[in-house]
Amino acid sequence: MLQTLSSMYPLPCSPPLQNPALSLVFPRTYLKNRPFCNTRNKFSVTCKRSEYYEQRKFSSPNESPSSRQPLGAFPPKVFVGYSIYKGKAALTVDPKAPEFVPLDSGAYKVSKEGFILLQFAPAAGLRQYDWSRKQVFSLSIAEIGSLMGLGAKDSCEFFHDPNKGKSEEGQVRKLLRIEPLPDGSGHFFNLSVQNRLLNVDESIYIPIAKAEFTVLVSAFNFIVPYLLGWNAFGNTIRPDESVRTNNASPRSGVDFEWGR
Amino acid sequence: MLQTLSSMYPLPCSPPLQNPALSLVFPRTYLKNRPFCNTRNKFSVTCKRSEYYEQRKFSSPNESPSSRQPLGAFPPKVFVGYSIYKGKAALTVDPKAPEFVPLDSGAYKVSKEGFILLQFAPAAGLRQYDWSRKQVFSLSIAEIGSLMGLGAKDSCEFFHDPNKGKSEEGQVRKLLRIEPLPDGSGHFFNLSVQNRLLNVDESIYIPIAKAEFTVLVSAFNFIVPYLLGWNAFGNTIRPDESVRTNNASPRSGVDFEWGR
Amino acid sequence: MLQTLSSMYPLPCSPPLQNPALSLVFPRTYLKNRPFCNTRNKFSVTCKRSEYYEQRKFSSPNESPSSRQPLGAFPPKVFVGYSIYKGKAALTVDPKAPEFVPLDSGAYKVSKEGFILLQFAPAAGLRQYDWSRKQVFSLSIAEIGSLMGLGAKDSCEFFHDPNKGKSEEGQVRKLLRIEPLPDGSGHFFNLSVQNRLLNVDESIYIPIAKAEFTVLVSAFNFIVPYLLGWNAFGNTIRPDESVRTNNASPRSGVDFEWGR
Amino acid sequence: MLQTLSSMYPLPCSPPLQNPALSLVFPRTYLKNRPFCNTRNKFSVTCKRSEYYEQRKFSSPNESPSSRQPLGAFPPKVFVGYSIYKGKAALTVDPKAPEFVPLDSGAYKVSKEGFILLQFAPAAGLRQYDWSRKQVFSLSIAEIGSLMGLGAKDSCEFFHDPNKGKSEEGQVRKLLRIEPLPDGSGHFFNLSVQNRLLNVDESIYIPIAKAEFTVLVSAFNFIVPYLLGWNAFGNTIRPDESVRTNNASPRSGVDFEWGR
Repeated sequence: MLQTLSSMYPLPCSPPLQNPALSLVFPRTYLKNRPFCNTRNKFSVTCKRSEYYEQRKFSSPNESPSSRQPLGAFPPKVFVGYSIYKGKAALTVDPKAPEFVPLDSGAYKVSKEGFILLQFAPAAGLRQYDWSRKQVFSLSIAEIGSLMGLGAKDSCEFFHDPNKGKSEEGQVRKLLRIEPLPDGSGHFFNLSVQNRLLNVDESIYIPIAKAEFTVLVSAFNFIVPYLLGWNAFGNTIRPDESVRTNNASPRSGVDFEWGR
Repeated sequence: MLQTLSSMYPLPCSPPLQNPALSLVFPRTYLKNRPFCNTRNKFSVTCKRSEYYEQRKFSSPNESPSSRQPLGAFPPKVFVGYSIYKGKAALTVDPKAPEFVPLDSGAYKVSKEGFILLQFAPAAGLRQYDWSRKQVFSLSIAEIGSLMGLGAKDSCEFFHDPNKGKSEEGQVRKLLRIEPLPDGSGHFFNLSVQNRLLNVDESIYIPIAKAEFTVLVSAFNFIVPYLLGWNAFGNTIRPDESVRTNNASPRSGVDFEWGR
Repeated sequence: MLQTLSSMYPLPCSPPLQNPALSLVFPRTYLKNRPFCNTRNKFSVTCKRSEYYEQRKFSSPNESPSSRQPLGAFPPKVFVGYSIYKGKAALTVDPKAPEFVPLDSGAYKVSKEGFILLQFAPAAGLRQYDWSRKQVFSLSIAEIGSLMGLGAKDSCEFFHDPNKGKSEEGQVRKLLRIEPLPDGSGHFFNLSVQNRLLNVDESIYIPIAKAEFTVLVSAFNFIVPYLLGWNAFGNTIRPDESVRTNNASPRSGVDFEWGR
Repeated sequence: MLQTLSSMYPLPCSPPLQNPALSLVFPRTYLKNRPFCNTRNKFSVTCKRSEYYEQRKFSSPNESPSSRQPLGAFPPKVFVGYSIYKGKAALTVDPKAPEFVPLDSGAYKVSKEGFILLQFAPAAGLRQYDWSRKQVFSLSIAEIGSLMGLGAKDSCEFFHDPNKGKSEEGQVRKLLRIEPLPDGSGHFFNLSVQNRLLNVDESIYIPIAKAEFTVLVSAFNFIVPYLLGWNAFGNTIRPDESVRTNNASPRSGVDFEWGR
């Protein structure tokens, strides 16, 4: 499968501006990044994007989780992830939930898509990792899709600027590169962060074996519908609910005219 | 994988007429369309079909969702989708639930399969989309299957006539074509709508990157069993339910004779 | 991918006899059939097997579902399937739930794996199908696996004898063959049933388009864990349940010694 | 797809030592093994690892399940698996749940990843298996990933030492090898156990047909997110929960500043 880099249809790199008139119907989580994953091309063209995600405070490995006590029938909050420990670095992969907002009708809509938080920590010694030097990178839905479709010989890279569109734009530059290992046994994950505000210039490499990548892809495949909120939609698909809704809605009577 | 277009076994294009005697057992949602997706053939043969779906009123981006207030134990209604914004157009992909009808026995059956609603809006300026000019296209289960099986170099097209079988047949013609981007970086989605009733002739193009297509396929893979109602069936698979049902049914005693 | 038919390790065709001593731990649903699916070989070697499934009475398209009224918190029974209508025949694909038995401990185990019921009906005219002449075939878990792994150019066949091991063995012979369509657009499903008891000799063909086959595989992928009861196991994976169980079990204290 | 065995980036074979400071955030279930699955190489390099799993007592086929009575709203415990019976041996494949621990906040985290327990029993006669001579092998998440990504012509092997790091290290050696069948019809599973403590030297072979392997991969794909606890995370993704949590958390107000 040969691919060339020249695209007749260049994709715009900037997210669309928020149109207030649309905010009731479309979540704010526009597809903010344009992932390009190239086949057999080591370095790929990418677009700069505002990296909102990194600006949020996540419960890091060094702090205890926030005190969100579960109430009543709500399922208790659960922290999950998938961790890979190698000689020179560790990588943790954590899903982060989407957010919903209620509508006047009593229904809900997704207001912010979920994402995958990658945390890289360099080794500080034998089987010790320095989480104080960790660097984080948040994968959007489309970037997750890039990884899910990544062939054994494909490479991929994403660029994030957490301050895009702000006065500090360009001060923090994050580049995540994923390249096949030379022996074909997996992929290299390399996160480079240049932070001029903190005078930090860190580059962390970790090899991900094919088996570990397979686990990631399987977990991503599972979680993507959740990150989009489609599982919440799926949960509403119940026979009794369907009948109740149809009875309450005169339109469905019209619908049933079809096919007669 | 070479494929030719000539089929020794032509598939019928028209849906079977509704046989009232079957209506208790088979849902009305016959496989109404015959999707043909061809490999390496730019333009494919398609069948005209009645497009029921477009005749239903969907909650569009410009109207607030219907006031179906959740009651009691019913999960609240949730609006979900997946939106892709590009320079010249936007595409939203929304799953729509199947419908069920109760049987005299207290059980339920699927009366109408779910589907995927595609909404295309042309750009009206930088990062602005004109949803008043949007065109919609509903993917049936089999059409979703076509997309799920679409290879990187495959193209595909579906034709819908919302008025098929009615006096206005042929007045509205919708053609959705999906073709590989010349550089192999994804697929083009092109929806052409000729509506002689409204004197509208609109053709909207949007490039879908490989990563975005991967997300779509993953989400489709998740949602197809829900659109078929198989999740509702799956929810009934419970150990205690199984034992209760078997005890209530003398037939299962016979079943257990097997293998002794 | 070249494959030869000669196997150095012939698989036994007969199911293992039921060992009563094992019945508490292993479900009776031994892998009763040995599906062979061959690549690029039109006719494949198969093993005869007792076909238990066909002996059970299923709610056919012509009878109303059984009166298993849902009670209390039990979810209502739901009839689902996936139907494909073509010019000369129709095919319906219905999942059938596994069965569970309670253990003295209060736990449950799977006593019978679920399966997929295929129902073939020949056309009786334009868009009319003669369900009185339908023939059924039940796919075991492994046969479902065969279909899920079937490549575009692969063929496959299964042989069932519902009376295997009984006095009427050989009187009913069912052969399901699945072969690629000559033009590569999908597969042919052909069910041949020779029933000497009823003096019936029926062979029903139906072409299944690639898109429809993709839907089937997606639905199979969804339902296989349910047919094995793994979803019921998965439902027990809850944080609070985990902690409760571990506290009740002194062994888990030992488990936690590990890794220190 | 050609691959060489020489790796420029050798993966460390030993698990990282437990850092107590990390124990609140990272589960103890480090990725303890480094599975290497090679393409077209019959015998592959593997790393020795401590095999914790085998030291736990599992409810074997010959003992009744433990008496963990389900209480109140907790779903009843369910024993599930997938069994394959062949002429010379039987193999059962059982998922084992992850474990969780509560945090001070009321939330939970995964304290131990789940795994897949393989049990091999040699045949003791026609359709009889000697479970007293069974040998077990526990697949970690990454080893499951190896199997899920195993191509038709790939081989794979895992080495476990249940006593690694203890005085009896090296006394028990378990080697699971998975190799393609010569005719391409599936894979051979071979478990060799050398137990000098019990003076046991057992090697059990069982051929797994392609169809059965497909079922395994489908079931693994289903269960991996559960073994990681991601399903428990997914269950917390609910519209009403999202709104409740966001209202309780002042940080989310900051989050919503983004994109304006």
